[in-house]
Amino acid sequence: MTAAVLSTGTELTRGELVNTNATWLADALTGSGFDVVALDTVGDDEAHLAAALTRLGAEHDVVVCTGGLGPTTDDLTSAVVAKLLGVPLERDPVSLEAIRTRVERFGRKLTDSNAKQADFPRGATILPNAWGTAPGFAVRLGRAVACFLPGVPSEMERMFAAHVAPLLGPLPHVARHQVRLRTFGMAESQANDRLAGIEAAHGVVIGYRASLPEIEVKVLAEGTNKDEAERRAVAAAAEVRARLGSVVYGEGTTTLPAVLLALLQERGLTLAIAESCTGGLAAELVTNVPGASRVFLGGAVVYQNEVKTELLGVDARLIAEHGAVSREVALAMAEGVRTRCKASVGLAFTGIAGPDGGSEAKPVGLVHLAISRAEGGRHLERVFPGTREQVRRRAVFAGFALIRRELLGEPGA
Amino acid sequence: MTAAVLSTGTELTRGELVNTNATWLADALTGSGFDVVALDTVGDDEAHLAAALTRLGAEHDVVVCTGGLGPTTDDLTSAVVAKLLGVPLERDPVSLEAIRTRVERFGRKLTDSNAKQADFPRGATILPNAWGTAPGFAVRLGRAVACFLPGVPSEMERMFAAHVAPLLGPLPHVARHQVRLRTFGMAESQANDRLAGIEAAHGVVIGYRASLPEIEVKVLAEGTNKDEAERRAVAAAAEVRARLGSVVYGEGTTTLPAVLLALLQERGLTLAIAESCTGGLAAELVTNVPGASRVFLGGAVVYQNEVKTELLGVDARLIAEHGAVSREVALAMAEGVRTRCKASVGLAFTGIAGPDGGSEAKPVGLVHLAISRAEGGRHLERVFPGTREQVRRRAVFAGFALIRRELLGEPGA
Repeated sequence: MTAAVLSTGTELTRGELVNTNATWLADALTGSGFDVVALDTVGDDEAHLAAALTRLGAEHDVVVCTGGLGPTTDDLTSAVVAKLLGVPLERDPVSLEAIRTRVERFGRKLTDSNAKQADFPRGATILPNAWGTAPGFAVRLGRAVACFLPGVPSEMERMFAAHVAPLLGPLPHVARHQVRLRTFGMAESQANDRLAGIEAAHGVVIGYRASLPEIEVKVLAEGTNKDEAERRAVAAAAEVRARLGSVVYGEGTTTLPAVLLALLQERGLTLAIAESCTGGLAAELVTNVPGASRVFLGGAVVYQNEVKTELLGVDARLIAEHGAVSREVALAMAEGVRTRCKASVGLAFTGIAGPDGGSEAKPVGLVHLAISRAEGGRHLERVFPGTREQVRRRAVFAGFALIRRELLGEPGA
Repeated sequence: MTAAVLSTGTELTRGELVNTNATWLADALTGSGFDVVALDTVGDDEAHLAAALTRLGAEHDVVVCTGGLGPTTDDLTSAVVAKLLGVPLERDPVSLEAIRTRVERFGRKLTDSNAKQADFPRGATILPNAWGTAPGFAVRLGRAVACFLPGVPSEMERMFAAHVAPLLGPLPHVARHQVRLRTFGMAESQANDRLAGIEAAHGVVIGYRASLPEIEVKVLAEGTNKDEAERRAVAAAAEVRARLGSVVYGEGTTTLPAVLLALLQERGLTLAIAESCTGGLAAELVTNVPGASRVFLGGAVVYQNEVKTELLGVDARLIAEHGAVSREVALAMAEGVRTRCKASVGLAFTGIAGPDGGSEAKPVGLVHLAISRAEGGRHLERVFPGTREQVRRRAVFAGFALIRRELLGEPGA
């Protein structure tokens, strides 16, 4: 069973908007057991839309089309589909009432443009939209079951889950299950070497997705039914975990800061962060996790040397003697932020993010990381590759991983 | 003249990677005066790739295809194009030497897989790649000039500018010029109202692109030649600037933090930032600008109340009396961070980013912003809509804009 995604909108063909909908749908359809063969995009143009729908409907079993269901004159999808099917547009009274209720809730009056959103090709299955004004619909188009969804990502995603997935469920498709393991601290090629043989032994496909600085390891299994596919994927994923060890920090959509905060909270510990080269990125990623305030107490962004002394009590002589980018200053920053914030764990970064400021002895990318606890400190020195932004990201994740390894009692790198 | 973009790669059709290349190319081709009609994507599959190329080559004047030029067995593009044209693949000695040099510079030996990247359809125009191992090429395919570029975004973008744009220049196309104005502090609908009539008066098209929390206003003009298009776009853009006033903070690809840092530096001023609800995001955005250390001295992320007192000297009684999220505490934080960091300007944020922690009196989204200078302070209270991340972003940009307005001597909102 092959599937295609058609995205519509001149904002896409003009390059004004990155098409995240197509990627989301491709992932969802692949995970549901369809082979996604084409992701096509056309502008708000009747002829181009009709040609693309005709072609994709003839070639595939499933077509999911997004966009063009809005109230304005460039929203053409329902009319184009009706014409292709040779049926009239009909106004659906249930949808019209839902639209009226929604519009009036926001204190506006129902206009003709809004009402047009309740027009569907005769015979279409209407897909209600509980999250916006534009309902979707599904029709048989050539060989394909064709589903039409609004272009607003949050509405599209919810409508796919609520209405499209159940519609596609009865179609004959491959049963698939995928486990996503989130890892940090290992290159893709290393992971690939360590996992040699698992694909053949378990009958699964292992894929990698780099999302700097992390690698997601995806274990995909097929089976004659959903349960068999899941059993196989879970067994292979357990083997992957066993081989990769603690570089696997979680599953699914979790993040390293979230895992770190949960671990700290579980141990009854609190965190404070001192940052020079990372400029607030570590605090930002930690505080972006809802509920971070239960663990994270505060931190300092100490760019200038005098500020390191003033806010964190770093001895000015230490900076003069070893330089701001040094093991000694990193440890002093970690201890300073821990004691000033009265936290259990202090984490510090000092380095040269670039693009300028490097020297032979202290090149761009050099970062000293340190953690401080009442029982002592720990230090790590690294030279990270990449742009300013990449150096900062790599450093911050390395710092989070350092605390995690320390708490898990691992020596680590 | 119509153009199409074809992206190849199973990582795209499986939904593992968002396709930013297609958007970048659509924008570049639109700006170069072509009507981009289709953005299609196929996996690494010979039959699908051949079918898509044949179709797009027949329908369009320009086809730009990315991906499939790498060294591995799933990189099929050159071979598929040679087959479509009915010509053999030929190894190009100049490209081979360039690849060898590059590979050896990284301490590796040239393999057969690398050498394959120097194979092109006989008669193709070779597009050298100074930024990676995979050269591109161009051929006539049906009606189209078809250009093939690697999928790595940084290489693709540079090769388009260096080799594809000059190749397309002589084709008859519409002369276009676009001015991009970056704005903050006005909704799209407000901007739209204020700019009424400019399109007709100047013969331009005005477009909006929301990139939370900013709006980019794009002024696009066409003309019989490049100069005329540019004159028209620049004149209309001046009118847009005049009507929108200081919400326009820059042109092109600049950012509000970069503009703010440049303005502070120009005035010989320095900056320090105190953050509660924004959790380090303001410092992070400021320090992400290369050279930020000339202006930004440091800051504090003060999540816990005791930390506000310890790091910034905020009077604990002030917090007890007014609450941490209050005008008084915001002003005290701004003053505290300014004096402790010995900066000319202190900026502070305290608020409730959500999703929890709101009350009727102090709802989620409430943020108090303050700036402090030697001559006094200034305060702003706002309730920002959206998710935790959106509230934080909106607050930070509002803070940057507040300083900018203060320095430009504007009352502002």
